Amino acid sequence: MGGDRSNFYDSHQPSDRRLRHRPLWLKPITSALRVPKITSMAVNLQSRVIDLRRKLLAMGAEVEQRVALAVAVVRDGDVDIAKTVRETDAEIDAMQAEVENECMRLLALGAPVASDLRLILSAIRISNELERIADMAKGSCKRVTKLVESGSYRFPPALLDMAEATRTMLRDVLVALSNEDAKLCLEIRRSDSFVDALNREVMLWSREWITQDVHSTAAAIEILAIGQRFERMADIITQIAGDTVFLVEGRILRHGAE
Amino acid sequence: MGGDRSNFYDSHQPSDRRLRHRPLWLKPITSALRVPKITSMAVNLQSRVIDLRRKLLAMGAEVEQRVALAVAVVRDGDVDIAKTVRETDAEIDAMQAEVENECMRLLALGAPVASDLRLILSAIRISNELERIADMAKGSCKRVTKLVESGSYRFPPALLDMAEATRTMLRDVLVALSNEDAKLCLEIRRSDSFVDALNREVMLWSREWITQDVHSTAAAIEILAIGQRFERMADIITQIAGDTVFLVEGRILRHGAE
Repeated sequence: MGGDRSNFYDSHQPSDRRLRHRPLWLKPITSALRVPKITSMAVNLQSRVIDLRRKLLAMGAEVEQRVALAVAVVRDGDVDIAKTVRETDAEIDAMQAEVENECMRLLALGAPVASDLRLILSAIRISNELERIADMAKGSCKRVTKLVESGSYRFPPALLDMAEATRTMLRDVLVALSNEDAKLCLEIRRSDSFVDALNREVMLWSREWITQDVHSTAAAIEILAIGQRFERMADIITQIAGDTVFLVEGRILRHGAE
Repeated sequence: MGGDRSNFYDSHQPSDRRLRHRPLWLKPITSALRVPKITSMAVNLQSRVIDLRRKLLAMGAEVEQRVALAVAVVRDGDVDIAKTVRETDAEIDAMQAEVENECMRLLALGAPVASDLRLILSAIRISNELERIADMAKGSCKRVTKLVESGSYRFPPALLDMAEATRTMLRDVLVALSNEDAKLCLEIRRSDSFVDALNREVMLWSREWITQDVHSTAAAIEILAIGQRFERMADIITQIAGDTVFLVEGRILRHGAE
């Protein structure tokens, strides 16, 4: 299929300009304006793009599972579940690396059509964002464990509410991604301010706890940090919603995260 | 040059498979093993990739400037400088959008050689990361302003130390990116734990402040949040260092951020 692609990761060799030439696709110039035959390479690319999409959604399902467990950890202070979340994070990292590597291989293959290019670029971004969400889930589990083990785990209802709202946002954005539903994405972006409002309640609760019992300062600061993990997850989920709109409509949405 | 590229952002039209065919590059199969002539399209791509690199470094210089100002804001509590940082953030967003759009146009053009592909993918990532750093600089300025205006701005030496260390890390990573210096990147990744250690000092100082004067709780929590902004900036800078290693060596480095 033209050119040796095994050295894609190796920059010690000079760039191989021959990669630009793919003999299978060569046709007389006059044929370029006719509807092209679908070559075996195009069919291969098509099935690989479908497979990429499947891998990305599978990764999303795994991350959603981790976030659901993190919600249970916040609710029940269950250190065993927390341990599971922390110990299985490497699986998510491996899934992300696989998605990202496949994206780079596909981009190296050749000029993708606009919709495939958007899918590949979105997959790079979204897999990164999902990985960061899993990291945040792990981080919140770590902090709950610390509090439970020191016997000082108390939390406001707003913390559990924001954890659950974040989980719902993630589930919705994965549905939107799967169904290419841009309208749902715009709704998800609005949920982000709901999570921000809950986070402010968590802050007020923590300050109040400290004021009432200054010895709880360290624990209250941990609760703030857990709230911030979920707030960041919600923030990253709104970015995924923006990426999904780009995937579906080709529009770039930005949001003014701090 | 084959195909109308004006509809790249428009997915309402069916995919144009003719984009795969670029008549200018068509050559008899037998020539595919010879060193190809550099076509006008390749020259054009080459100059656009150089221009992309220049744009990315210019964006980096602007963000470094914002972070330097944020350090001054932390040090002097200067609300006028803080205002400048907050009001000019849209410029950074515009620079990022320009880099990202050019990357997508270049990817749509055709099969890039491995080194160009790495540059384009790195530019997408790094421009995003730089934009997030500028957001964090803006956020820290906002919080210092709030504290100064309420007359409760006090900070530990470790906070200024971590702000300065973060700024140095950013300067170094931009030098590493400009010089394609992978060795410097590995050193930068080690500096991240220094910033983390300073952040722990900021946490201890804040807890101590609250313990001594419970009325300072709100202000101490803001100091924690400012520390966290710089900690996240340092974290993102280590990601840029990883991206730079990928750009130079084609290796993918990951780091276990929480």
